[in-house]
Amino acid sequence: MTIANDGTGKDHPLRIGVVLFPGSQALGAFGPLDVLNILSWSHNISISLLSVTLDPVSTRPPRKVTATGQSILPTHTFASAPPLDVLLIPGGLGTRSLAAPVEHAINFIRSNHVHPKYLITICTGTSLAARAGILDEKRATTNKMAWVETTALRPQVEWVPHARWMVDGNIWTSSGVSAGIDVTLAWVEEVFGVNVAEEIARGMEYEWCRDPTHDPFAEHWGLWPL
Amino acid sequence: MTIANDGTGKDHPLRIGVVLFPGSQALGAFGPLDVLNILSWSHNISISLLSVTLDPVSTRPPRKVTATGQSILPTHTFASAPPLDVLLIPGGLGTRSLAAPVEHAINFIRSNHVHPKYLITICTGTSLAARAGILDEKRATTNKMAWVETTALRPQVEWVPHARWMVDGNIWTSSGVSAGIDVTLAWVEEVFGVNVAEEIARGMEYEWCRDPTHDPFAEHWGLWPL
Repeated sequence: MTIANDGTGKDHPLRIGVVLFPGSQALGAFGPLDVLNILSWSHNISISLLSVTLDPVSTRPPRKVTATGQSILPTHTFASAPPLDVLLIPGGLGTRSLAAPVEHAINFIRSNHVHPKYLITICTGTSLAARAGILDEKRATTNKMAWVETTALRPQVEWVPHARWMVDGNIWTSSGVSAGIDVTLAWVEEVFGVNVAEEIARGMEYEWCRDPTHDPFAEHWGLWPL
Repeated sequence: MTIANDGTGKDHPLRIGVVLFPGSQALGAFGPLDVLNILSWSHNISISLLSVTLDPVSTRPPRKVTATGQSILPTHTFASAPPLDVLLIPGGLGTRSLAAPVEHAINFIRSNHVHPKYLITICTGTSLAARAGILDEKRATTNKMAWVETTALRPQVEWVPHARWMVDGNIWTSSGVSAGIDVTLAWVEEVFGVNVAEEIARGMEYEWCRDPTHDPFAEHWGLWPL
């Protein structure tokens, strides 16, 4: 598998990193992670969960103190992150925070030593990559309910309002929350082939949306037709 | 809300417990949890994550040592579980284990002091309730790929092979993995109303399967038509 060859001629596991921050949304992270976990049953991959510290990270949005959330254990800090072939950024209300953990995540995404072969962003996770400046002049999409405030954060991005997901070069961006499953399956299809992706979707009993232009939510929120 | 009234005339949060065990599947747990987390933004609920100890619980299937998994922190042990109005049991390869954590989970599900007003099982999580004996003579469904081995564990259950989810009294059982989102949304519709369920689905940008008899996976695996 060419993307997991580091140039020494020796294959290593495909190294996937997932950015966690307080208020990363449960399904936005664990939908794609379920796809990747099942992929690991047949392919040599590793998954790192990255955060500013090794403390548990809650899915509870920081500003909703009475909301429920679950605590996930990171495997690495941003400072100790291993080399990565794929960087995956989930979304969630936590992306809207201006607090230190999100700023650290953005700095990590922007940093020069992170140059994954693929970037996959889910929902408002796209906004972290956008604020890092790495989506400038790229075609990208994001959550449709939060469209106006998310896209305003970085007008330099070529925002595409009617898309379940978008691909621009090695950058894969998705619409809200559950669209993360669809974009991750599409990425698996691209890298590992359609049979692998179909088998994973079937194992999840998931009716995979395979049309990246299918977006009833853009229509619901009046983003399309314009 | 009547289901969260303990008879003292004083409402308490709707108390939801989720059973965790090694190899509980990521999407099977966090799909429903995402629905419930969003519900918590507008309704007074609590969610406990229950396991045999307070140690982190990995989604990695115990018998797949090279597989990837993520670690979740329980909030309570089975022994210290609070009173529950709803018990939710995710599935995953870990259900097939005969090891102590799964036996403890089954004992907890069977125990007399757990009598939630609603039971919701996802995927092969249904097998834990079945092995606990509490589905005997009930109409229930489960994962379609693992249908033969799962249903063989407890023939006393009235297994229904063609169903995205089933409701029998206060017991809600679902088909594989992602069907957990559909059954949880259907349960939210039943308890909180259709507008609340639709708003949650829209917030997740999830095209909710609202027909419990829609089951292309039963057809794929030759379980229907018989």
